[in-house]
Amino acid sequence: MPESLPEWAEEIFGGDRRAIARAISSVENGEAAGLELLKLLFPKTGQAYVVGVTGSPGAGKSTLVEKLAADYRSAGVRVGIIAVDPTSPFSGGAILGDRIRMQALAGDEGVYIRSMATRGHLGGLAPAVQDVVTILDAAGCQVILVETVGVGQDEVDIARHADVTVLLLVPGMGDDVQTFKAGVMEIADLYVVNKADRPEADRVEQEVAAMLSMSQRRDDWKPPVLKTVATTGKGVGNLREALERFRKVGQQDAHRLARRREQWRRRLLELLRQSLFETALRELDDAVLDACVEDILARQCDPHTLAEQLVRDFRRGKGMAGKR
Amino acid sequence: MPESLPEWAEEIFGGDRRAIARAISSVENGEAAGLELLKLLFPKTGQAYVVGVTGSPGAGKSTLVEKLAADYRSAGVRVGIIAVDPTSPFSGGAILGDRIRMQALAGDEGVYIRSMATRGHLGGLAPAVQDVVTILDAAGCQVILVETVGVGQDEVDIARHADVTVLLLVPGMGDDVQTFKAGVMEIADLYVVNKADRPEADRVEQEVAAMLSMSQRRDDWKPPVLKTVATTGKGVGNLREALERFRKVGQQDAHRLARRREQWRRRLLELLRQSLFETALRELDDAVLDACVEDILARQCDPHTLAEQLVRDFRRGKGMAGKR
Repeated sequence: MPESLPEWAEEIFGGDRRAIARAISSVENGEAAGLELLKLLFPKTGQAYVVGVTGSPGAGKSTLVEKLAADYRSAGVRVGIIAVDPTSPFSGGAILGDRIRMQALAGDEGVYIRSMATRGHLGGLAPAVQDVVTILDAAGCQVILVETVGVGQDEVDIARHADVTVLLLVPGMGDDVQTFKAGVMEIADLYVVNKADRPEADRVEQEVAAMLSMSQRRDDWKPPVLKTVATTGKGVGNLREALERFRKVGQQDAHRLARRREQWRRRLLELLRQSLFETALRELDDAVLDACVEDILARQCDPHTLAEQLVRDFRRGKGMAGKR
Repeated sequence: MPESLPEWAEEIFGGDRRAIARAISSVENGEAAGLELLKLLFPKTGQAYVVGVTGSPGAGKSTLVEKLAADYRSAGVRVGIIAVDPTSPFSGGAILGDRIRMQALAGDEGVYIRSMATRGHLGGLAPAVQDVVTILDAAGCQVILVETVGVGQDEVDIARHADVTVLLLVPGMGDDVQTFKAGVMEIADLYVVNKADRPEADRVEQEVAAMLSMSQRRDDWKPPVLKTVATTGKGVGNLREALERFRKVGQQDAHRLARRREQWRRRLLELLRQSLFETALRELDDAVLDACVEDILARQCDPHTLAEQLVRDFRRGKGMAGKR
């Protein structure tokens, strides 16, 4: 790396696309430089509006995100897009959909698009979406659209960290409605019935409205149910208006502040867990680990007891070499 | 709890069903008693043959597992069944399918059936399948069938911990073949084409065989492709024979021992990560955590730096109260 960390940070503050790309890759790969860079970037963040967009595969999320980004661009807003793709646990890489899709945004210097995988090498959300948000926020993106696929735990975790969550529904999705009923209703702030030119759109809208009438929110916001046809762009302007209304309403809202507190609390604990484990792994002698495994195989010691011993050794700073 | 831990352990060694049920619940709830119990049980384990069964939803896994269990029972083998169910991230509980299905095994004292959720309260595989295996192994189950749904990371993790992995395929599953191609081929030891009375069964069998001919295994085992009709029990006897052949071949196999080493190595590191975090959480003062979050919100300190400080304080045994 030719330049220093402060220089790298300055390039990102200036919106340099190659510097941004290198920063995200560095963070994704868990490099120490990426971590130090994040620390430099963080004080200048907190300005971006983070919009989480989730829904079933095939609901039209990419198209809607593309059109929404274009709509924000027409108002001169700088936009970041993070597409969180489901990853094979084997391939390790994200589907690089950003290369082939969102052609309409290609060549626009006011948009930065990045795909990332949901799974890291040690399980869990290793390449944190939040860190990529920090980079794009520092780079001057005023709105950051985070698109996730599916309604699993990962997607919910991501949605929990957005400033606002949009749930995309689509007519004819069948038993997915059951999945959504299970709880996504609790996390979404805006509902969008996409492909609203289909005949069943009204029924879906009514079902969502009926479900919403039974749910309780801590704040005063009444989640709207909007209709869009992402392919033509119909209704996308209304979606942007609703998003901005939600943002404005929340600026003095105590519940919204409590939500941000809770988001950062989760994130800090997640980082604590990760940092504890990574520090311990660095110090853990391979020979010690091998000896532990032999003890387990011989049934001479159980794995829970061994893990507790390793924790004690870690705290004593014994380099975890003095197993027993 | 009326009895002591050693008494509880003795009840489990004797196969007492209520003692087993309480042990699993205790471990699932992360109770200290369950953890201590596992330590007492562990030395008497290692005898059970752990069979992982995975495949797409609708492939007929439960039915096959039920028939396979009945086949083992007819040979006088004591069987444990663990059904790992996908869980809503919200409800927190597993689908209690064991109550309604597997009627054929009801009332047989030689079979123990238990459902569990894949997700814990802190994300990740908190109620570890491995701990439930330990309990059933200690209780005298000679074969433990672990049934998982889907081919996500969780399922692969579980499959990685079984002694043998069976992948269930089914004719007419469409693009799922693509999913499997991505890598499940690398983890399965036996392939079963279920619903083999369907016309496309031969094609699926040939496709699997073709894929297998291109893949490389570290051991000498040639994964067989079997055909079953789980609903009628056809082919289930052959499956059991193949499973027992795999077991026998592996007893002196160096690759198989290396695989068990690697499984325990993973499990130990997983427990280390969990134990580190849980110990830190117990000591972490709520006021300290709140102060950290306020610093983040005010952009006075970044979350990565704060997490590193918390790790340092944890190691110093400072009760993590001296934040800076």
